[in-house]
Amino acid sequence: MNPVLAGVDVGGTKIQVVITTLELEVLGQSRGATPPTGGPPAVVETLCILLDQARRSAGVDGLAALGVGAPGTIDKATGVVARSPNLAGWIDPYPLGAELERRTGARVSVDNDVHAGMLGELRLGAARGLTDVLGVWFGTGVGGALVLGGELRSGPHGASGEVGHVCVHPGGRRCGCGRRGCLEAYAGRASMERRARKLVAEGRRTELFRIMERRGVDHLNSGVFARALAAGDDLAQDLIDDAVAAAGAGIASVVNAVDVEAVVIGGGLGSRLGEPFVSRVAAAMQPHLFVTGGVSVRAAGLGDLAGALGAAAAAGALVSPA
Amino acid sequence: MNPVLAGVDVGGTKIQVVITTLELEVLGQSRGATPPTGGPPAVVETLCILLDQARRSAGVDGLAALGVGAPGTIDKATGVVARSPNLAGWIDPYPLGAELERRTGARVSVDNDVHAGMLGELRLGAARGLTDVLGVWFGTGVGGALVLGGELRSGPHGASGEVGHVCVHPGGRRCGCGRRGCLEAYAGRASMERRARKLVAEGRRTELFRIMERRGVDHLNSGVFARALAAGDDLAQDLIDDAVAAAGAGIASVVNAVDVEAVVIGGGLGSRLGEPFVSRVAAAMQPHLFVTGGVSVRAAGLGDLAGALGAAAAAGALVSPA
Repeated sequence: MNPVLAGVDVGGTKIQVVITTLELEVLGQSRGATPPTGGPPAVVETLCILLDQARRSAGVDGLAALGVGAPGTIDKATGVVARSPNLAGWIDPYPLGAELERRTGARVSVDNDVHAGMLGELRLGAARGLTDVLGVWFGTGVGGALVLGGELRSGPHGASGEVGHVCVHPGGRRCGCGRRGCLEAYAGRASMERRARKLVAEGRRTELFRIMERRGVDHLNSGVFARALAAGDDLAQDLIDDAVAAAGAGIASVVNAVDVEAVVIGGGLGSRLGEPFVSRVAAAMQPHLFVTGGVSVRAAGLGDLAGALGAAAAAGALVSPA
Repeated sequence: MNPVLAGVDVGGTKIQVVITTLELEVLGQSRGATPPTGGPPAVVETLCILLDQARRSAGVDGLAALGVGAPGTIDKATGVVARSPNLAGWIDPYPLGAELERRTGARVSVDNDVHAGMLGELRLGAARGLTDVLGVWFGTGVGGALVLGGELRSGPHGASGEVGHVCVHPGGRRCGCGRRGCLEAYAGRASMERRARKLVAEGRRTELFRIMERRGVDHLNSGVFARALAAGDDLAQDLIDDAVAAAGAGIASVVNAVDVEAVVIGGGLGSRLGEPFVSRVAAAMQPHLFVTGGVSVRAAGLGDLAGALGAAAAAGALVSPA
């Protein structure tokens, strides 16, 4: 039987697994909820169950290598996830790579979830064939990744691509990271929700929280924002306007400093709001761009599978280095 | 006789030439004023005279390769300088590389002056031994350069490192490039002079222009700023405070997006204001830095010779690729 790869995207709410050929053709997949309690051991347990399901759906048994994308601060070299604020109970460093190698017997690569998503887009999605790309993922926060010279950049601290913490308004809104004026403070879903709650407390009217309740969720997820925008909700529109303006300045600044040929926009919020959002961000970048005309801004193409496919691609590099 | 390299830094006011061994040991040098009229042909003529002087001072005759750093928009592959706003009369694209090859018989490399300066610092100066560095050059404008994985980054548009056009205040001060809120609008010498003239016209008092006249110059050069600061001039202090704050936010933003191990600060103004300025910029970066503790901020070490030595290093790569 031909060797196969597995790619896993560990998200705050769900875990997505794909089984692929060495050429990243999808053979099978599975998806389940991220355990809300139990910390890293519970995540590993769920991951292994989903991995078995995906292998069965693909009709394969062995595994050449396993790649994992996870939120948080990750040491690629050791596979240790230092902390992962978006995963419940994941506070102390945990040797995710070593534990998964022990459990699966396969070689394991672990990387940041956004880096994995960018690698997926580079190999199979919106960045295919490009060599110099900035990826910006709008979700709970704002993440990013740089592909330079055809390679995903890690950086000396493994922290390359923190576009969410580019300062777009010195002294401006407080970010979840504690700093002020970060892009994420304007364009991250969690920051936008904090802002909405503050404005509602000050008497501003909005349908956002009624839509949230009707949808049976406990936070303003991408679907809630999309629905409120479609209904012409003023506050939702203002929040998105602020996000677009901040994204235009912040992304263009990074493009000016680094020089890339394209920007790929993804993440839960980016994907849900889709092409209209991408077009608005592209327009908002224009007044700030130093090199004009040569920077393509495009939507990510792989949707929910980008992270898992990118993780599979990273696993593939373990068994057949480029 | 052993083969030698020449490196030339073409600045807005002076042209600096060095003659070096293949190991970049300086054998001779010369320096002269940049011709204020006559455009590119006059620059080439002066450059060739200075090159002959430097060769005589070094006691050498042949030339293995010649490197040139020049301000403006440069196509490294063809050696064409598209436009160079800081060189008088340099409006149309000019094939500087080809013309110098014809005149000298040597192979010629042409690059942006700031990229050349960064390469000099990488090979011989403050960035020696480092692999991932952001260089920021404070002068008439604010230029920059990125070294990633030990290599000077050019970028798909040859525009990598435009840190001066990172947006630090959306809708803020007008920059010389026409945009608003660029770092250069706060921290470039020409912008600071425009700001000083505006504030003086509005009634603000300063010694800056009296110092300028006493020094017999027609603009607020780095020496004028240094003298005014030493004399406790309020307006000069305010301008530098604004420059430091903008530099802190702008540079930290680029460091967050790219992830580097060090920042090197150079350029005419950066060198003249020296260590106190570098320390203040480092402190102003701290509140905005995502990765703390691991980013060294240091002054450029080669002073006026950085550009010419970097150009010689680029020439060296033509004859003995690494």
